[in-house]
Amino acid sequence: MSEDRPLANTATLNVDLGDRSYPIYIGADLLQQPDLLARHIPGEQAVVISNTTVAPLYAETLRSGLAQFKHVELVVLPDGEQYKSLDTLGTIFDALVDKQCDRQTTLIALGGGVIGDITGFAAASYQRGVPFIQIPTTLLSQVDSSVGGKTGVNHPRAKNMIGAFYQPRCVIADIRTLDTLPERELSAGLAEIIKYGLLWDTDFLDWIEANLSKLRARDETALRHAITRSCAIKADIVNQDEREGGLRALLNLGHTFGHAIEAGMGYGKWLHGEAVGAGMCMAANLSHRLEWISASDLHRVETIVAAAGLPIRSPVELPIETLRNLMNSDKKVQSGRLRLVLMHGLGAALITDKVPENLIMETLRATHAGTASELPEPLQFTDSE
Amino acid sequence: MSEDRPLANTATLNVDLGDRSYPIYIGADLLQQPDLLARHIPGEQAVVISNTTVAPLYAETLRSGLAQFKHVELVVLPDGEQYKSLDTLGTIFDALVDKQCDRQTTLIALGGGVIGDITGFAAASYQRGVPFIQIPTTLLSQVDSSVGGKTGVNHPRAKNMIGAFYQPRCVIADIRTLDTLPERELSAGLAEIIKYGLLWDTDFLDWIEANLSKLRARDETALRHAITRSCAIKADIVNQDEREGGLRALLNLGHTFGHAIEAGMGYGKWLHGEAVGAGMCMAANLSHRLEWISASDLHRVETIVAAAGLPIRSPVELPIETLRNLMNSDKKVQSGRLRLVLMHGLGAALITDKVPENLIMETLRATHAGTASELPEPLQFTDSE
Repeated sequence: MSEDRPLANTATLNVDLGDRSYPIYIGADLLQQPDLLARHIPGEQAVVISNTTVAPLYAETLRSGLAQFKHVELVVLPDGEQYKSLDTLGTIFDALVDKQCDRQTTLIALGGGVIGDITGFAAASYQRGVPFIQIPTTLLSQVDSSVGGKTGVNHPRAKNMIGAFYQPRCVIADIRTLDTLPERELSAGLAEIIKYGLLWDTDFLDWIEANLSKLRARDETALRHAITRSCAIKADIVNQDEREGGLRALLNLGHTFGHAIEAGMGYGKWLHGEAVGAGMCMAANLSHRLEWISASDLHRVETIVAAAGLPIRSPVELPIETLRNLMNSDKKVQSGRLRLVLMHGLGAALITDKVPENLIMETLRATHAGTASELPEPLQFTDSE
Repeated sequence: MSEDRPLANTATLNVDLGDRSYPIYIGADLLQQPDLLARHIPGEQAVVISNTTVAPLYAETLRSGLAQFKHVELVVLPDGEQYKSLDTLGTIFDALVDKQCDRQTTLIALGGGVIGDITGFAAASYQRGVPFIQIPTTLLSQVDSSVGGKTGVNHPRAKNMIGAFYQPRCVIADIRTLDTLPERELSAGLAEIIKYGLLWDTDFLDWIEANLSKLRARDETALRHAITRSCAIKADIVNQDEREGGLRALLNLGHTFGHAIEAGMGYGKWLHGEAVGAGMCMAANLSHRLEWISASDLHRVETIVAAAGLPIRSPVELPIETLRNLMNSDKKVQSGRLRLVLMHGLGAALITDKVPENLIMETLRATHAGTASELPEPLQFTDSE
């Protein structure tokens, strides 16, 4: 296959960041096309970093396609958000030093967001920077964490607290790898797809609502469109604001709530996408209390999140006060003020640090599984307006 | 003191890196001028990171000068190269999370190269980047590690293997802090000063030879000139090549040998500058074997290194084969080829990956404390040419 000919049934997006620009390839069976990957490996040595779940499924296909390289090593990490730690990062460095990897060694992340984030940070830091390629194998990582250059690990008390901005040479999103993805993780990926509709594009939100059952049935065409549109929205935002001066912060819709849920439950208990699902409903609830979205908009948000197979309430095990305290550990806190991304109408997000504390607490109570109404019905307080 | 008025008896150098440019202030009693520091702290919160040796001497002066800020915290690490590790980095992150440090928190490194390197990497990585200021308190860190944006920690088997390029907001080199510096560390700093003469500037080399006794007596005027000229040479090189494409690699003169000595002895046993002192003599020895410098040049290098109070031979405890193997772990290795910085005439360095293996081994034997002649006399092999 020529380097320039467009790939059949494959979408190619370019993330435009000057001399750190890179392509995202989205299509089926891309792992069967090793040239796509090989052209982005500058040296003679590559290390595939994967986990115990994904490596048995795809690592051999990947390595056999790279036979022309001198060394292609494999590092297999344990699977789970709880391993996205400084300790696991240390085991990657141990392996790289053991294999005498030099500055030209390309690190290839093969797995979900955890593998992508930790491998990216390892690539950013090893010898102060080696080439890096992302092969995301979950829906969530295909639409979110493989685009935008955020890499890192968690601190035990705060998510993604330690990391770097570091761009990959390319991203290869092979839709076929989603065939082996558990139902729960597919839903987690849908959370981020819904997020792009909610914060940026109501047409896309309409499309998601109309195609949710196709997406959950893993229809190839529907998935390719959803992933491509999501990556395009994210790339669009990142192009305008690589380092999170302002616009990029909008991508954190639902995340301040979500991160608090994840940290409070212990990493790995709730999937990131599940926490974001509930977090978006919490952001919508608060937006409604501020009279920025209508009761029917709030209802619409809860309905679509629920229809994607995601929680719409914070977990019953997690006391509201704990949740509130954990929100203060979020990176969005600036000079002691909590900054939240909320909706001002569907399809339009904004960031604010001026939300009255009582409304935050009311939202936490109204959206807590222990106290909220179970069903995504218009909530009681809407009557009193 | 006005922001623009030049400081009396203080040299100010500007490292020109576009929007990441920063000033280096070099003079006596700069810690008594808190405005100099305060103007480079953008937020309301700062964390001073120091060690058990330096913190008792200068941390209080520093903090009391920053009373106008909301929080100025102090983190004290154990002292020594062996603590420049991923583990110590973890304790810094623990402290930052404990103190709920946000993205506007400035990290201030108060100490030698270890403190500067690890604090810089912590600043690069915490929340993917917070502001950073260097206050180097050793001669070595004033002339070397505080300029150029290299930050990082050691891997147990390879020095500076993990890190980031990250620029400080400013560097404050207070010559008065050298008054408390042990003799051995003063000599270690002189190694890097000599290095700048050897690789870039024979006039400066002449000046160092003429002023070595003043420098060892800690004469303020001589030190200010030596530090300013060293930083200027380094800044000049870094300006031209921030990411070590080529030119910057010359700054590693003596370092491939030196790093192998440090790693082989166990970090902290030999000071970095001591290892570089011996390493420069080894590089000179090899350069002479290649007929790139004369026997009298080699003699001159060994004489000045010895006169600075530094070793000119690799340690007797470290077998030559171990040393050779450790050289292969150096970051300068590319695609399996050892790359060395050598001298082509004094005052001119070059990088090469074409040195015959037998000459490397001859050099290691000729410069090993167990086999070499003790004194920096012209070596035997020069007769047989």
